[in-house]
Amino acid sequence: MNTFHEINTPLRTIMTPGPVEVDPRVLRAMSTPILGQFDPAFTQMMNETMEMLRRVFQTKNKWAFPIDGTSRAGIEAVLCSVLEQGDRVLIPIYGRFGHLLTEIAERNGADIHIMECEWGEVFDQEEIISEIKRVKPKVVAIVHGETSTGCIQPLDKIGPACRELDVLCIVDAVATIGGTEVKVDEWQLDAVIGGTQKCLSVPSGMAPITYNERIEQIITVRKKVEKGIATEHDFLDVKQQPIRSNYFDLSQLQDYWGPRRLNHHTEATSMLYALREGIRIVLQEGLKERFERHRLHEKALVEGIKAMGLELFNDVPWKLPMVTCINIPVGIDGDSVRTMLLQQFGIEIASSFGPLHGKIWRIGSMGYSCRKENILFVLAALEAVLIRHGASLQVGKGLQAALTVYEVSHLVVK
Amino acid sequence: MNTFHEINTPLRTIMTPGPVEVDPRVLRAMSTPILGQFDPAFTQMMNETMEMLRRVFQTKNKWAFPIDGTSRAGIEAVLCSVLEQGDRVLIPIYGRFGHLLTEIAERNGADIHIMECEWGEVFDQEEIISEIKRVKPKVVAIVHGETSTGCIQPLDKIGPACRELDVLCIVDAVATIGGTEVKVDEWQLDAVIGGTQKCLSVPSGMAPITYNERIEQIITVRKKVEKGIATEHDFLDVKQQPIRSNYFDLSQLQDYWGPRRLNHHTEATSMLYALREGIRIVLQEGLKERFERHRLHEKALVEGIKAMGLELFNDVPWKLPMVTCINIPVGIDGDSVRTMLLQQFGIEIASSFGPLHGKIWRIGSMGYSCRKENILFVLAALEAVLIRHGASLQVGKGLQAALTVYEVSHLVVK
Repeated sequence: MNTFHEINTPLRTIMTPGPVEVDPRVLRAMSTPILGQFDPAFTQMMNETMEMLRRVFQTKNKWAFPIDGTSRAGIEAVLCSVLEQGDRVLIPIYGRFGHLLTEIAERNGADIHIMECEWGEVFDQEEIISEIKRVKPKVVAIVHGETSTGCIQPLDKIGPACRELDVLCIVDAVATIGGTEVKVDEWQLDAVIGGTQKCLSVPSGMAPITYNERIEQIITVRKKVEKGIATEHDFLDVKQQPIRSNYFDLSQLQDYWGPRRLNHHTEATSMLYALREGIRIVLQEGLKERFERHRLHEKALVEGIKAMGLELFNDVPWKLPMVTCINIPVGIDGDSVRTMLLQQFGIEIASSFGPLHGKIWRIGSMGYSCRKENILFVLAALEAVLIRHGASLQVGKGLQAALTVYEVSHLVVK
Repeated sequence: MNTFHEINTPLRTIMTPGPVEVDPRVLRAMSTPILGQFDPAFTQMMNETMEMLRRVFQTKNKWAFPIDGTSRAGIEAVLCSVLEQGDRVLIPIYGRFGHLLTEIAERNGADIHIMECEWGEVFDQEEIISEIKRVKPKVVAIVHGETSTGCIQPLDKIGPACRELDVLCIVDAVATIGGTEVKVDEWQLDAVIGGTQKCLSVPSGMAPITYNERIEQIITVRKKVEKGIATEHDFLDVKQQPIRSNYFDLSQLQDYWGPRRLNHHTEATSMLYALREGIRIVLQEGLKERFERHRLHEKALVEGIKAMGLELFNDVPWKLPMVTCINIPVGIDGDSVRTMLLQQFGIEIASSFGPLHGKIWRIGSMGYSCRKENILFVLAALEAVLIRHGASLQVGKGLQAALTVYEVSHLVVK
């Protein structure tokens, strides 16, 4: 490794639950020369991005902007700005990313109450609401779409119940934003974190968030402008505990994204270009049309998998539309199949975590990766590789079933 | 704002102390299609980036990798992973970014001891060493190059003194890395944070850091692998206080960047492409040659400014080579000059913060922005704009002085 060459990567077909293939228009946007962070041409782009994010989140919230970090940075920014030492938090866990919420809340000194169900299940909303009434938390933190299990948790009753009980509802919608409905206002969610590298088809490295005035109120009380840039009126008594992180302090980020434009970090210029272009493409396609497209390709993939003779792990009414989990057939080495898919076909699919490791494969159909040729290619390749591994299959049936789905669809498939 | 168009930015000449113009090769690298984070082709790039970072930091440290966030994310990652509640920290402050170190350490519960000198000055190293002996801190945190004042703090004696006194020395080299010497091993610095958007000419959004086994030891004791991915042997008793942040937990990041490749965040693919290409270009140019180039253009700029009849704020032996601060002449509206530079010439220069706000302009000459045509253009434009603002100047002298510097230089100027 004494001389290093310019980047020369293989071109992959990425069918994981993220990161997924980036729309070529987004890739091009990133090669735009940069602007200074306070250049009026750049602050206008920041404002446009906020306005487009509101539409993607289906909200009228004032605050909708990205955190400069990967998805979990967005989650940590919201949780550490809201939670003080000893605050009670209820976290229903149905997969790995529920544990992540616990992890982050715990490190912030919160008093954690968890509910757990088996991986592959989700909660009856009434069950969670009963627990909210019993535990009386300040915050309910919950995952909308669990990529680790391929399940989606309905939230339309939990949000309104939280509002009625004066509990804050914070939602990890990293996997679902841009791929299926995330109705922030209609479901009365107080703060929602999205991901870029999944259904938005933007590279990892930013986390769009939105929150309402209930959250803003808490943050504002804890506000503390950093020395070196604070002016006199910023030196107020901080009565509550100050936010433990400077980087994730939403009260300072508001001053940066708001009209005051108070210097905090230096906005990640090229990633903002990417996010802006990514959500522009989402809105250009149309939310409804985009969600329908995700459903169609999911159907083709699922029908193909089943026709092949494989079994779905998440063949349930609460299946996450953009993640299809397949039980690894008995006697087949799951990792060997994935390796051969990558080495022979340049296709990447995923394994899973914790109790599901070695038991399922996960195929993502998200954003730009969610298109006909990718679905057909992954079905064809999976069949070939499984035959090579000695599995007994309905040979040739998978692609036929998928093609039929596309044929009878009224959608013009891209 | 009902329809949003594709990105169509003006092209600027960016002469601020960051973010600066990005090398076109870096911009192109970012439009490379992405890879999955565990794709062998990608993990190889992660390893290559680590190896190149070691060379840029002039260290043999095992750990050298980027934090996925802007520069202050790197600072926070190091400080919050090292500092526990009540740990004593000594912070010598000579500008805004010293205050930022205080801010971050304070929010992490540290017991802060500061030394301050006037903005525009730096410390005698012996003075700091005496204070270290008196305060007996666990950590000294200090800024290497203060962009807010254009000053550089020598560290070659402070590092060895810290080592001798068993104190950790943590350095913010955000402004200096890639632009002037940052000798991590020779100066015996324990942890150093670099910035991408300054002398490396990579967009903001990543923070390369390096640290040695003294830091690693502390982090390892505080290690806590998150639930959902931890295996049995990870559930050790955590005797010390666990690190308060999940996102910035260097013990988990080590497992992600090290051979275990334990899933943490999803690496910011395109930003890693950018960083890899940026530091590859640095090494291709050569560190020594790159630092000389920065010195040459600094000299041309400084001679031009002086010949024009303007006064430097940082005309001192401890001038930061890549930031030139100019006293705003009496009677001239500094912001009006900056606005006219931007609107008429498309050139961006900076104002400053705190006590220097409205008193100085700051011109950066960093990375790809640090080249002859930019230096000559900013001198020409500044003269024209100042004449337009009624300043009395040595008309025509600035460019002549700069051209003379270039003529007599032995360097082949790019």
